[in-house]
Parts: sequence; structure tokens; C-alpha cells
Amino acid sequence: MLSNNSENYDLKRDLKNIWHPCTQMKEHESEPPLLIEKGDGIYLIDRNGKRYIDVISSWWVNLFGHNHPHLNKAIKNQLDQMAHVMFAGITHAPAINLAETLVELTPPNLTKVFFSDNGSTSVEIALKMSLQYWQQSGEKQRTKFIYLSGGYHGETLGALSVCGINLFREKFNGVLMQNLEVQGPDCYRCPYDLKPDSCQAECFEHLEKTLNENRGTVAGVIVEPLVQGAAGMKIYSPVYLKKLQEACEDSQTHTIYDEVAVGFGRTGSLFVCDSHGLKPTFLCLSKGITSGYLPLAATLTSDLIYQTFYGEHASMKLFVHSHSYSANPLACACANETLSLLTKNNFLENLKPKIKFIGETGSLFNEYKWCGEFRQKGMIAAIELVRDKLSKDTFHLKDRVGHKIYLEGLKRGVLMRPLGDVIYFIPPLIITNEEIKVMMDAALESIEAVLS
Amino acid sequence: MLSNNSENYDLKRDLKNIWHPCTQMKEHESEPPLLIEKGDGIYLIDRNGKRYIDVISSWWVNLFGHNHPHLNKAIKNQLDQMAHVMFAGITHAPAINLAETLVELTPPNLTKVFFSDNGSTSVEIALKMSLQYWQQSGEKQRTKFIYLSGGYHGETLGALSVCGINLFREKFNGVLMQNLEVQGPDCYRCPYDLKPDSCQAECFEHLEKTLNENRGTVAGVIVEPLVQGAAGMKIYSPVYLKKLQEACEDSQTHTIYDEVAVGFGRTGSLFVCDSHGLKPTFLCLSKGITSGYLPLAATLTSDLIYQTFYGEHASMKLFVHSHSYSANPLACACANETLSLLTKNNFLENLKPKIKFIGETGSLFNEYKWCGEFRQKGMIAAIELVRDKLSKDTFHLKDRVGHKIYLEGLKRGVLMRPLGDVIYFIPPLIITNEEIKVMMDAALESIEAVLS
Repeated sequence: MLSNNSENYDLKRDLKNIWHPCTQMKEHESEPPLLIEKGDGIYLIDRNGKRYIDVISSWWVNLFGHNHPHLNKAIKNQLDQMAHVMFAGITHAPAINLAETLVELTPPNLTKVFFSDNGSTSVEIALKMSLQYWQQSGEKQRTKFIYLSGGYHGETLGALSVCGINLFREKFNGVLMQNLEVQGPDCYRCPYDLKPDSCQAECFEHLEKTLNENRGTVAGVIVEPLVQGAAGMKIYSPVYLKKLQEACEDSQTHTIYDEVAVGFGRTGSLFVCDSHGLKPTFLCLSKGITSGYLPLAATLTSDLIYQTFYGEHASMKLFVHSHSYSANPLACACANETLSLLTKNNFLENLKPKIKFIGETGSLFNEYKWCGEFRQKGMIAAIELVRDKLSKDTFHLKDRVGHKIYLEGLKRGVLMRPLGDVIYFIPPLIITNEEIKVMMDAALESIEAVLS
Repeated sequence: MLSNNSENYDLKRDLKNIWHPCTQMKEHESEPPLLIEKGDGIYLIDRNGKRYIDVISSWWVNLFGHNHPHLNKAIKNQLDQMAHVMFAGITHAPAINLAETLVELTPPNLTKVFFSDNGSTSVEIALKMSLQYWQQSGEKQRTKFIYLSGGYHGETLGALSVCGINLFREKFNGVLMQNLEVQGPDCYRCPYDLKPDSCQAECFEHLEKTLNENRGTVAGVIVEPLVQGAAGMKIYSPVYLKKLQEACEDSQTHTIYDEVAVGFGRTGSLFVCDSHGLKPTFLCLSKGITSGYLPLAATLTSDLIYQTFYGEHASMKLFVHSHSYSANPLACACANETLSLLTKNNFLENLKPKIKFIGETGSLFNEYKWCGEFRQKGMIAAIELVRDKLSKDTFHLKDRVGHKIYLEGLKRGVLMRPLGDVIYFIPPLIITNEEIKVMMDAALESIEAVLS
């Protein structure tokens, strides 16, 4: 029974008034949420002073740890000038600087930045810009998007209509825009029995077929490049993206890169598109853009798209879309400091030994019978747990293996949040090798406590 | 030609890299955006030190002025603890306090708070909760929403599907969820020739008819209570809302109140629903929730809705929806301070003389031949300009009367942003009578400069 201390009092008030996201609230009857009070580097600190490694960077957003002095200072300085101002008819230095830096750091075809508040809206904006482009370019029949099975792009109804994971969309299928799902890459269970390091993305044939069959009606193709996050950090070959680019150029179809999760250094480079010489028509960014401090998003696109909306007032070609807090100056100031930290002092270069260490430490998991696969792309790593290593059979949903491991992790001071039975690591980029070791050891102990 | 000072350099960089919301960018060739550097109370200050009254509270968000010491302090204090942490499996004091306060201050049937980032997402969440409720309550055929002509609820594709203003949706009609638009109130041009102060909302018959004809398939009805903002601050009678409540109770249909614009004191009371004894099934809040400092939104709902999602994990009844920055602690801390300012020291009571003064000053506009109507609800006021007072004929779109008045306003240090030819006032609530006088006088001068 809950005693009457301040922590329990606050937890009671939480359960009385709050509906948490993506949460079966009944579970909090027996497993109350953690009451976190402070952050410090890679650690979250609860009301009782217990520290937890933020293994998943608070939903993949935090890059430089909690309570970073430079980020705190950037926000405080901006706060003393102005917290916010509307972004139509008005501009401000934090947004001007941020847009310029984003254009500099992304592929050369991306020249314009449209700001919004979160990953979902950055995707909605890309979808709407693509649709309106075709409306204004004499190809009004281009109204469908192709998306991959396993793809996740946010949960507003437009973003959900390009979601390839049934869990998120099944209750809403009846009202969603009818788009085209194609079988995406599945390297761990490759139907072609190939290896992602040496394959030629043979699985691209599904997308190619759908694109050919719907040539005149497809507005664009949306992908999470290299890593399908919500699907369980499923990693696939850049060859797939090269083929996608060729096929879309060939059919003059837009490519929408959702780098909300993989952008800003997670894969070891700033952006997947840029590091692989790829040129998406739209690039969606959010999450790490403020190093996990404040909501902010950006949709980047090309001059070709922009010019199709550019004209006299009477043409009514403008893009009618706004959010009140577009380009919030506090968030932009924080984003500018984030990009400064990411690009100075060889920060990305210095990730390489950590990435190597994660690979070395993580590949030791392969020895265990429950480890179907350890996989890694830069600072993102995952262990897919299986019931049978040979057949790759999964555990039963009702066994809730991932959830039990999550609870074991909490006891050991690591905050994981498995995706089904995929235990994954996407820690703040500032994590040290020592801390990686502690995190991996605690994960191993937690898995063993449940599975051995 | 632009000279080479820092303002012009920054404006060039703006136009090179930024795509502003709801803006025909070509217009900035001749009318560059204002480069705002600081905020101070009701004033925005540009790079050259020129001050502008923020007549529209930076898109209707600011309540207590820019650079308010209490709000700045609340954010700085929270920043020293923790900027952000994920909100699944975790909770924190700023969100717990905010949710409790919101539940206390809203109608008694609203007991649960679901956080997100902006008005659009707060509406998307209400739509999705409503749809999933019916899916899980044995009435799966309830998949349509009724919305009013003139209604505006955000611009993500789900929110657009309940938008009753063609400007926002026309380019996307082909892909939007098929909902039901009904003719809404239009008091200035009342087809029944009635007065809003004495009518019985005879115009509700349209909604009633549509509801009756689609009884089994309507999930909910969405409205902006009392004031349709984007339609031109169109004000209608609370009798309409009472009739709506009765009709929806009768047919067991959800009501969704979008108080994103009118909430937090704008109408002179905290929330329209509460001050009129109404009980919406869902209440969407954003904009003023942080007094215009940071993006944050909340969707409130009832225990009846909540319980339909509550159950064992295996039931999969949970609401699968999340945004990374849900319940951002910095924004919640700012919202808590905002609500403290709104509810202490008789703040709302003390608005009454200002509201009276706006009414007295504003009604003087009625003398002018171009003033079709001066209308007001609390701290929201509007002048609808007409070409002919008797016939109520509007100006030609191509004359761009509202836009010209906007430009005249800038010269006079007032930042308005007319909706077509409706000049409106929704200033920070802290505006004084003296400042109201200056604002109104400058508006009059600007209108006269264009129309006389």
C-alpha cells in the first residue's frame, strides 16, 4: 500500500488526472510510473535520488545529456530577449540562423526550411506539400503515397496513413487516406537469404513493382532511411535507398525521408541522406534537433517544390499551413546550440571509438541462445530476442518478455523501453565507454533474470 | 535596394532559406518580414528599436505579455532541474500539477488529461479517441464527424477533415476523411434576420437535421464554442451550444470543444464550456496554455471515455498515440505559472472594465460607412469591413483591403493581421485601457488611410 510521502501523493494525483501516451493505464495500478525529478548527463534521477541511465534518450530525442550547461544557457539567453513571436510576416535571428545551418548541413538540393512542432507535423507538411505540388503541376491524379511495411512516421491521421505497423493504425483503418503499402526490407529474416552487407537490395523489387503499376497516381514514397525505428530498430542496406532514388527519378516521384529518429548523429553521421549522397525531395527532422529539450520540427525541400508555390497573391498557390508556435525562438536557440555542439571539436569523428565499442560489446550477446541478432548502425543498437535461435521463432506476446526485462532493468538503474521483444540502445551521444559497459552489463543481467 | 547592414543581411538569409507559414513568399520581395528581436509586455521590438503593439498576441497565444518575469523565472527554474523526459512509464511534478489544475478548472465531467504539442494534435487526439471509443463500444459504424461551415481546427490532415473553410482544405479535398459539413451560425448575415442576443439559435436546425439523418454513423460533433476564429472572429449565441449538448446527449454522440483559441480567459472567463455550464466529451486546449511561450496542448476527456480504453494488457484497448515531447516539463512549468497568474488576484474579474472599454471604444467604429459590424466577446473584438453597409457586400478579393490596412498599421506601430477584410483585436490580456485606446486609434487611422 502506498504510504503518505510526497512521492506517493504525487503518483496518486498522476493516476487520478493523467492519461499517459502509448500506455495501458491499468498497468500503472501495480507498476506506477517513475517520478523523475532531475536530469544529469545520461542519468534521470527520481524523487528518492535513484539514478537511471536514459538508455533510449527519452524517446530518442536527447543527444548531449540532461542539464547540459551550453543548452541551458542558450535557452536562458533567448528567454531574456523573447520567448516567442508569430512566424508569418515576422522573422527572428534564431530561426534565420537555424534554417541557414540546416540548409548547409543537408544535401545541396534542399534549400528551403518549413518549421513546425513535432515529427508528425513535419511529415504531414511533407505529404501536403507533395500533394499540392502535383495539384499545381498538372498531375492532379497523383494523390497516393507508397510506404514500407514496418514504417512509422507519426500518429496524426495523415501520418498514420503511411504507417506500416498495424498496432498504430488498426483502430483507424476505416478513415485513413488509402495509400500503398509495400513489403519493406527485413534483413534478419531475409526472404532471399542474403546478407545486408553484400546484398543488392533484391527486396526493392516490391517497391519497384508497386511504383510501376501505379506510375501516374503516386505522389511520393516515404521511408525511414537505414533504420526502421518503431519496427524494432530494423536496419537495412543503403543500396535500397540508391535504388529508390533511381526509381523515383525515373518516374518523377517525390521521395520523403523521415530522419526524425535517425538524424542528428544517431547513425554516426549527421544525416543519412547527406552521408550517402542521396537527394530526397523532402527531409523531415525533429527529435534530436533540440537535443531533447523542446518540441521543434523542420521539413526541408527543394527549389523546384518551392517555386511551384511561388507567385502572385491572386494565384493562391501559397502553402496554407501554420502552427502557432512555428519556429519558436526558444526551441530554435536550443537547436542552434545543438548543431554547434554536433559540428564542433570533431564531435562526430570522436563517436567512432564509441561506435566500435558498442559493436564489440554488443556482439558478445550473439553467444546467448535467446539472442536472435545483435544489430547496430552507428550509435543505435538492438538485440532481437527469440525463443528459438535456429527457426527465429518469437516469444508469445502474452509472455511479455520485453516488458519483464524493462522491469528488471529499472531495478538495475537502466531505463530501457523494449519494442516488443527487441531490446534496444539509443543513448545520449555523450555516453562514455565506461557507461556503455555499465548499460550493456545491466541489460544482460536483466535479460538473463527473465530468460535463463 | 537593401543596404549592407545587419538587418538587411539577416533578411536576405531569411528569404534564401526559410519558407514561412501561411505566406505567399513572393510578397516578401517587396514587403520583407519584420525582423523582431525582443519582446516587452504588449510590444514587439524590431532590430531598429521600433515598437509594435502585438494586437493579435502572436497568433492568439500571448496572455501576459512578452518577457514576463514570473514566466521567465518558472522556465529557468525548471531548466535547472530537467528540460525534458519521456512521458510513457515516467511522470514528473510539472505535468502532475498542470493536469490537476486543468481538471479543477474545467467542467466536472472532464477528469483525464492527455498532453501533446499543438492545437492540431490536440484535435487529432480527440478525433482518434472518439473513433476508438466507438470501435471498442460495439458501434463500429460510428466513423463520421460533423463540423460547421466556418469552423477551423488545425491543419494536419485529420484536423483538416473537419475544417469548414475552403481556403485551408481545397487543395487536399481528394484525400481527406469524408465528414459532414453543416451550415453554421452567421449572425452578422443571419438568414433568419434575428439578433444573437435574443434569438433561439434557430440556425441549429441544420445541425439537428444532419445529426438525425446520420444518427448511427456520427462519432462526434466538433465546434469552436462561441467564436469561430479563423472565419473572422464570428461570434454566436451560447443557446446554440445548449441545443448542441441536448441533441448530442439525445443521440449519444460525442461533443468536441475546440477551445484552442477561446480558452484561458480570452472570452472573459477561463473556459467557455465551464462558464456556460456545458459538458463537452472532449476539450482541446493549446495556444494560451503557456501564455504564448512554448508549444503545448492538452485534450481533456471523461471517465466514461477513459474506462473504455482501460483493461488488461492483452485486451489491446489502450490508446496508442504519442509525441516525443508530450508534457514537456519546461512547457508544463510555464503553463502552471500561466494558470497561477490567471486565477490569482482577481485577474479575470479585473478584465471586466477593460472588456467594457473595448466595447465602448469599438462601438464607435459603427459610425463609419465601411464598418459592417463591430463585434466583441470578452477580450476578442473585430470589425468587419464592407463595401456597402446596407447590402453588406464585401470588398473585392483583389482589392486586398485588409492587407493594405495591415501595412498601414505597421507604419503606425500596430501589428494586426486581418482575416480577409475583418480587422480584429485579440491583444495580450494585460493590455491597459490607455494601450487599448492607442491600438484602436491606430487601427482607425490605418483603415481610414486605405478606405477614405
